[in-house]
Amino acid sequence: MKLISPYLLFLGNAPDQLAAKSAQGIVDWRPELARGQLRLPGCAADVGLPDMSLRDASAQGVKTLIIGIANAGGFLPEAWTGILVSALEAGLDVASGLHARLEDVPEIRAAAAHYNRRLIDIRTAAQNLPVGTGQPRTGHRMLTVGTDCSVGKMYATLAVEAEMKRRGIPALFCATGQTGIFIAGSGVPVDAVAADFISGAIEQLTPDNPNGHWDLVEGQGSLFHPSFAGVSLGLLHGAQAEALILCHEPTRTHMRGLPQQPLPSLSICVEANLEAARLTCPHVRCVGVAVNTSHIAQDKVQVILDQIEDELAIPAVDPFASGAGRLVDALLAP
Amino acid sequence: MKLISPYLLFLGNAPDQLAAKSAQGIVDWRPELARGQLRLPGCAADVGLPDMSLRDASAQGVKTLIIGIANAGGFLPEAWTGILVSALEAGLDVASGLHARLEDVPEIRAAAAHYNRRLIDIRTAAQNLPVGTGQPRTGHRMLTVGTDCSVGKMYATLAVEAEMKRRGIPALFCATGQTGIFIAGSGVPVDAVAADFISGAIEQLTPDNPNGHWDLVEGQGSLFHPSFAGVSLGLLHGAQAEALILCHEPTRTHMRGLPQQPLPSLSICVEANLEAARLTCPHVRCVGVAVNTSHIAQDKVQVILDQIEDELAIPAVDPFASGAGRLVDALLAP
Repeated sequence: MKLISPYLLFLGNAPDQLAAKSAQGIVDWRPELARGQLRLPGCAADVGLPDMSLRDASAQGVKTLIIGIANAGGFLPEAWTGILVSALEAGLDVASGLHARLEDVPEIRAAAAHYNRRLIDIRTAAQNLPVGTGQPRTGHRMLTVGTDCSVGKMYATLAVEAEMKRRGIPALFCATGQTGIFIAGSGVPVDAVAADFISGAIEQLTPDNPNGHWDLVEGQGSLFHPSFAGVSLGLLHGAQAEALILCHEPTRTHMRGLPQQPLPSLSICVEANLEAARLTCPHVRCVGVAVNTSHIAQDKVQVILDQIEDELAIPAVDPFASGAGRLVDALLAP
Repeated sequence: MKLISPYLLFLGNAPDQLAAKSAQGIVDWRPELARGQLRLPGCAADVGLPDMSLRDASAQGVKTLIIGIANAGGFLPEAWTGILVSALEAGLDVASGLHARLEDVPEIRAAAAHYNRRLIDIRTAAQNLPVGTGQPRTGHRMLTVGTDCSVGKMYATLAVEAEMKRRGIPALFCATGQTGIFIAGSGVPVDAVAADFISGAIEQLTPDNPNGHWDLVEGQGSLFHPSFAGVSLGLLHGAQAEALILCHEPTRTHMRGLPQQPLPSLSICVEANLEAARLTCPHVRCVGVAVNTSHIAQDKVQVILDQIEDELAIPAVDPFASGAGRLVDALLAP
């Protein structure tokens, strides 16, 4: 499952900017992958790319139409069938991160076969995944872990990759979620993997590497989220990371989606992750905290970062706002 | 997915008794469900039931042929197609716990449609599972957890159920693995559930119950097994158990299948499971240890049980060898 760029980003009739989160992620991190956006009447999102028809996209060499929006339930609106068929007819592959599969819509499947294009349901896990072994692997690996879901693990991982690349360090962002897979062009949709193969799929994603190389693994969920902790633990064991970066969003008052569920304290969260991670990497350390300050007033940010540094005695930064320099320094420190 | 009894147990050409583990589990715990066994030439297993042809089984009211054996790779040998088609023709449903799906063999699928019988691939997880919430539920729940895979969690759970039923306590064995599902007639094949839905599937399996009722949940894997810990953690959160029973096999020298991976100490294993379980059940306790002594010389058993009791200060018994009376006493103690 390798996506071919350049992309045209399909925003459909997204009701707001947040619904276009995947498309925005691509534009934020890999602007060179996307040539334009395709919006339907009523679309309230705009990721700042030129609006482009399927015909123009094809003429400009676009290879894949990316369904870069989310909707409640993850279904594929019937109203999109015509435009997706037209995209295939125009010579584009179509890739989707929705729960509903492109393959399951007969007209779309038939058009893909007829025009010899690929349908890529990135939420469909590969078959024949291996079972994890926990065997030591070569190369370096870092994993982002979280106090909660959706606190900025992907952005933190990408910020570390950008900083390492700036320094000339061989580094690879390893995607485990839908937006990450669009950005990386490939990856493992770990939430869709059969439970027995969580750690095995991540071991396959982050294989033996040369000594100086860093695999930077996008974390998912939280050990403290009652819905998804199994995913997080399998990821932790499979990644066999020597370094963790804790990701946190300080305005959360409860675990995402669960009003009755409090957040763990930062220090308890670090300790629980280290404890579990030691099973496959005994010398694992937590090197820093990536704080998502997007919901915090500008004049409060530094106070909060300082508080976290005092509490945990490791660097706390917002890597999207101000770069991952200090996190990378900490990663590389002996 | 509800299996209809009585069963005929298909042992195929099992190379040894261990390959017929699922069939043996049914005979050990629900002998009333199985009328006979069907063995092919060369079969080296025998679960002590009358050998029975498909025709005789049908005449005696058998409703389901159970493929009660395992093979490396979990595939469906081509040589079985004829006999499975004959079973459908004789009016039986066919249920399989193999990885390979009955549905995927065209002749078998066609025969099931033609004779209007059901094919039940018990390793295929239900679609449309809910995401877990961790919301408090009514009734009592117990979960077996393990130092390792395959240490006797299912047998311990069934022994507790048998003892509770003997005492007139409303109790239900909740199956999470293939043999357990054959025994219970239904359940959740948790290792096949998509990773995002592990805890949700277990919440659905163990719903709100009347006050005095006990759901007794079959555990899987171990928090300390690098291949499967994600499953174990999702199960722990989803079961929301107020009581854990630790299951252990004292002759294990390393985690099953992983020669490099040591076993955790019993006390570390108890503490890690309690710590994680508190996320959804703050008052959880570990009430006892179920020790699988099947590989221990008779004159050494009591010494080992006494050592474990001394170490953990909770009852340690082999519930399959000598009953779960003390475990149930501990479960019911205030």
